[in-house]
Amino acid sequence: MAAPQLRTGAELHALVERLYPICRSITGDGVRQTLDIIGEHIPLERHEVPTGTAVLDWTIPQEWNIRDAYVATPSGERVIDFQELNLHVVGYSVPVRQRMSLSELREHLHTLPDQPSWVPYRTSYYAPAWGFCLAQEKLDTLPDGDYDVVIDSTLADGSLTYGEHVVPGRVTDEVIVSCHVCHPSLANDNLAGIAVAISLAQQLVDPYYTYRFLFMPGTIGSITWLARNASRIEKVRHGLVLACAGDPGPLTYKKSRRDDAEIDRVMQHVLRSREHRVVDFSPYGYDERQFCSPGFNLGVGSLTRTPYAGYPEYHTSADNPGFVSPAAMEDTLGALRDAFGVLDRNRRYVNLSPYGEPQLGKRGLYDSLGGRSDAKQAQMAMLWVLNLSDGSHSLLDIAERAGLPFDIVDVAARALHDAGLVKE
Amino acid sequence: MAAPQLRTGAELHALVERLYPICRSITGDGVRQTLDIIGEHIPLERHEVPTGTAVLDWTIPQEWNIRDAYVATPSGERVIDFQELNLHVVGYSVPVRQRMSLSELREHLHTLPDQPSWVPYRTSYYAPAWGFCLAQEKLDTLPDGDYDVVIDSTLADGSLTYGEHVVPGRVTDEVIVSCHVCHPSLANDNLAGIAVAISLAQQLVDPYYTYRFLFMPGTIGSITWLARNASRIEKVRHGLVLACAGDPGPLTYKKSRRDDAEIDRVMQHVLRSREHRVVDFSPYGYDERQFCSPGFNLGVGSLTRTPYAGYPEYHTSADNPGFVSPAAMEDTLGALRDAFGVLDRNRRYVNLSPYGEPQLGKRGLYDSLGGRSDAKQAQMAMLWVLNLSDGSHSLLDIAERAGLPFDIVDVAARALHDAGLVKE
Amino acid sequence: MAAPQLRTGAELHALVERLYPICRSITGDGVRQTLDIIGEHIPLERHEVPTGTAVLDWTIPQEWNIRDAYVATPSGERVIDFQELNLHVVGYSVPVRQRMSLSELREHLHTLPDQPSWVPYRTSYYAPAWGFCLAQEKLDTLPDGDYDVVIDSTLADGSLTYGEHVVPGRVTDEVIVSCHVCHPSLANDNLAGIAVAISLAQQLVDPYYTYRFLFMPGTIGSITWLARNASRIEKVRHGLVLACAGDPGPLTYKKSRRDDAEIDRVMQHVLRSREHRVVDFSPYGYDERQFCSPGFNLGVGSLTRTPYAGYPEYHTSADNPGFVSPAAMEDTLGALRDAFGVLDRNRRYVNLSPYGEPQLGKRGLYDSLGGRSDAKQAQMAMLWVLNLSDGSHSLLDIAERAGLPFDIVDVAARALHDAGLVKE
Repeated sequence: MAAPQLRTGAELHALVERLYPICRSITGDGVRQTLDIIGEHIPLERHEVPTGTAVLDWTIPQEWNIRDAYVATPSGERVIDFQELNLHVVGYSVPVRQRMSLSELREHLHTLPDQPSWVPYRTSYYAPAWGFCLAQEKLDTLPDGDYDVVIDSTLADGSLTYGEHVVPGRVTDEVIVSCHVCHPSLANDNLAGIAVAISLAQQLVDPYYTYRFLFMPGTIGSITWLARNASRIEKVRHGLVLACAGDPGPLTYKKSRRDDAEIDRVMQHVLRSREHRVVDFSPYGYDERQFCSPGFNLGVGSLTRTPYAGYPEYHTSADNPGFVSPAAMEDTLGALRDAFGVLDRNRRYVNLSPYGEPQLGKRGLYDSLGGRSDAKQAQMAMLWVLNLSDGSHSLLDIAERAGLPFDIVDVAARALHDAGLVKE
Repeated sequence: MAAPQLRTGAELHALVERLYPICRSITGDGVRQTLDIIGEHIPLERHEVPTGTAVLDWTIPQEWNIRDAYVATPSGERVIDFQELNLHVVGYSVPVRQRMSLSELREHLHTLPDQPSWVPYRTSYYAPAWGFCLAQEKLDTLPDGDYDVVIDSTLADGSLTYGEHVVPGRVTDEVIVSCHVCHPSLANDNLAGIAVAISLAQQLVDPYYTYRFLFMPGTIGSITWLARNASRIEKVRHGLVLACAGDPGPLTYKKSRRDDAEIDRVMQHVLRSREHRVVDFSPYGYDERQFCSPGFNLGVGSLTRTPYAGYPEYHTSADNPGFVSPAAMEDTLGALRDAFGVLDRNRRYVNLSPYGEPQLGKRGLYDSLGGRSDAKQAQMAMLWVLNLSDGSHSLLDIAERAGLPFDIVDVAARALHDAGLVKE
Repeated sequence: MAAPQLRTGAELHALVERLYPICRSITGDGVRQTLDIIGEHIPLERHEVPTGTAVLDWTIPQEWNIRDAYVATPSGERVIDFQELNLHVVGYSVPVRQRMSLSELREHLHTLPDQPSWVPYRTSYYAPAWGFCLAQEKLDTLPDGDYDVVIDSTLADGSLTYGEHVVPGRVTDEVIVSCHVCHPSLANDNLAGIAVAISLAQQLVDPYYTYRFLFMPGTIGSITWLARNASRIEKVRHGLVLACAGDPGPLTYKKSRRDDAEIDRVMQHVLRSREHRVVDFSPYGYDERQFCSPGFNLGVGSLTRTPYAGYPEYHTSADNPGFVSPAAMEDTLGALRDAFGVLDRNRRYVNLSPYGEPQLGKRGLYDSLGGRSDAKQAQMAMLWVLNLSDGSHSLLDIAERAGLPFDIVDVAARALHDAGLVKE
């Protein structure tokens, strides 16, 4: 049976809605269920890395799984209920089963007083703790008294799970696209990114580069991948961290630490025709933090719409499927397709006839009737490619220098290549 | 008998008018007649390169000569007449002698519907063809019927002709000034350039560099020169392609492909005091295309007034002697004299007393009465030359850094040189 | 007895007033008296360099001392009197004792016609001459007739005097602060600078660099110091020439000849929070001319308020203690303290865990409760230091790149250093 294809904004949004209820964390069955669903669309190589494995400066933590959690009145009325919204439990909470007074419980409750109807998202990955998140306005209604507090979770040796999908290219040099899959019921962060990445992977046909899509928990996932792929990293020529792909804001490209890596140039080139912002690298945000740590310093940028922590709904229950739109996800997908379309064809050619202009006319590459002032764009593109193909200018360099569309420059280069005037 | 000197705008313009009627092309007697007239003003070394000679990627074409051409009614009335204006014949037209209907003839007629009273200029150098150019309003008056079509031209083995004039300098490093001489009755493009170049050559006295003036057909001429001067090219330190030197527009300097060659810096420096534009290099225009092809990549820019194809009269009968003015040619000539004046004196000196300031007073180079706040420009120039003459700054660098006129910096450097404080 | 401390603007101003009456020149007892007073505040190593000593391209001149000078009527009324204001005598005037007519005398009189009530400051160091300076309005009252002209000065072999104060640092690399001490009764130029430098020296406690304060006559003093310290110069990492430290204008930083020396970056960084101007290097002004001569090319900038010759009172009797204010000197001092505070801590660290982010949480360096969007500045500073500490970025580079205060970046780097994550 053919894998279902994600093509339209509506199809992307439907996947977001399907993934939304799953309780993901940096380890555990929520990630596995998510990878199962991704795997229905694109082949996925799954990895399980055991608890305790050393990965760079870190160690794979115990695996966390949760079955139920609630705060209930003595009469059994659940006033905070994980089943209703998985954000209600602080991620990685240790198990609890205890009756306590509201004032004791309060130390474990997190709200957003400024957004009293929203439930915050909180985790405590690397320090044993437990807690509940709830709306401030809900908390305000809780009467004093005792409550039954239950978190039916497990923290135990297990593994960290991530998945890879590879689209083989004509060369083994790689482009990586990385999405974090560790957030529970948060739509923009990062179910929209997952959906867009799947669609992008499905649409890559016979690319030049080998494209590797990484679906991994944030931070520890990318650190694990980097630790386990030391020999592959030198093959990674370009990359993007994709997140927040569906909110109403304009596209935002965050440059790599290198600041002028080829992906930085390509993204800025294709975004010029869309509403967008470009921001400098900073060592905060998503997994570009790891890919761009100084030891690796990869040419990996980050594409989002509104960036990390830049919208009020960020890390709250308001980041739900209603917050992401089919149109926004289509726009993100379109920009990525354009960008990889340029990146994948961005060659450097060398003019084999660099002394004077070669005679284009005798090769059928040029109008024979001289004296006309309206040199056509295609001919200008040929002249630019010949003039700048000295080994140091890529087609993108040439397109930007010439003020010509990349596609026309690419076509001109191929024509010159076919005529034997340039070589790759 | 002394050669006639071109000094005033009126003298420049008179030469344009004298050269205007000649039917030039990339080969043939029109070029030879033009070089004869140039040679009346400055000594010219003539070169004849035989048809069939391989020059870089090109081959010297057959030589084209034309004696007469017309379209006439059966009664012998010439409705299109080469004798009246040589633009009426498409350049390099193969011979024709035929009676044909107007509708057959129309495929060979070129007009400018948007400028119905102007005759376009067309050529077909590298594909055998023939044609006539005429005003649209003339074409509109031609009745249907048969016409006698005659082009009494010859395409035969011969040679390509070009001329060189050299002003020897104190060093063998060269500055080239290149003018195309292949256009028939077009005044701005490039008779004005030829006239200005002659005047400039006449006014160079005992220069530092060796100046080489090249009067050659466009494209094939510069390619021929480059092919035949492989060993000289490494002597070419700077150069200018000069064209469109007389139209009413402001001066336009087009930078070399290097973008910051010394000629680029010099031209921008001297143009600052005139109305002007500076444009980036592009591989389109005049023979800078060849000099700046990536294999040569010479420091050759291009000076025009309105640039290539940038005015409606371009490549039409409206580019006649009335389109170019004595004042505009004088202005072009003045800018060139200023520029070569700077270029020719733009040395790099080395401060022989670089530790602390040398004591200028004891050498008579400085006011002895201290405490005054009005340091004179000449003294400032000496301090700047001493401070920046570390081998990496030219006098132009120093003038621009100091915000001082080049002449004052040059005088200061010579004074320091005479005092033994700097060496070249 | 403890040396008197200069801390407040009032204390700085009192020192200016005390130094004001002394008649200083490039040599002589006025400099010695000035160094005596400086030496009451900070230990000073004194140097006497004999007349005739060759220093770079210069020679130590004869020593000039003056006891009295006046122009008097035959009846003995002093109409111009050195005792009243030492600016009345042209510095380095040869001795004179002569009766002459006013018209003969006029050739030796200097006034400021545009500022008729001010007395100009003039010198004639390197050519034997004599003269008087006076207010134009005073000159206008002098009746014709004969005058007794007396300059009781001595020009004789002696020595040039300068002083050094060193604050030893943890390293022998040096920062120099240079003040000229050769001007007679001029307050801003440079008594204010001397006072600020003393205060700065007193407040340096256990610095990283070794700080060397130089109190020397202008030009010949710095040339002498450079000539006598050839082996020390390679230890000079940074420096400042301090002058005009008390006038009402905003702070002005003049960059070193290097243009981006570390001192240039530091000064611009700390001045951003104050009203200020930054100007490019020029080989004119104070002793930065010598330190930045091309052979030395030291990283030495210049801090003034209104720069050299930039105010009407410059080199006139109007540059008196009333022209400089306690508040302005405090502001200059504050900027210098800030600057040396940054310079002294501006290290380059190397991240010892450059592959991925090190786990800050397990080292107690990071909040353990994830999911919060309000990353604190201190944590951001740690991430930035880790990300950019690749050996090529200093803490100042990091602070500017991150948009964080230098102090916070410095604290973060020390915390990471203590945790063993970075090394110096």
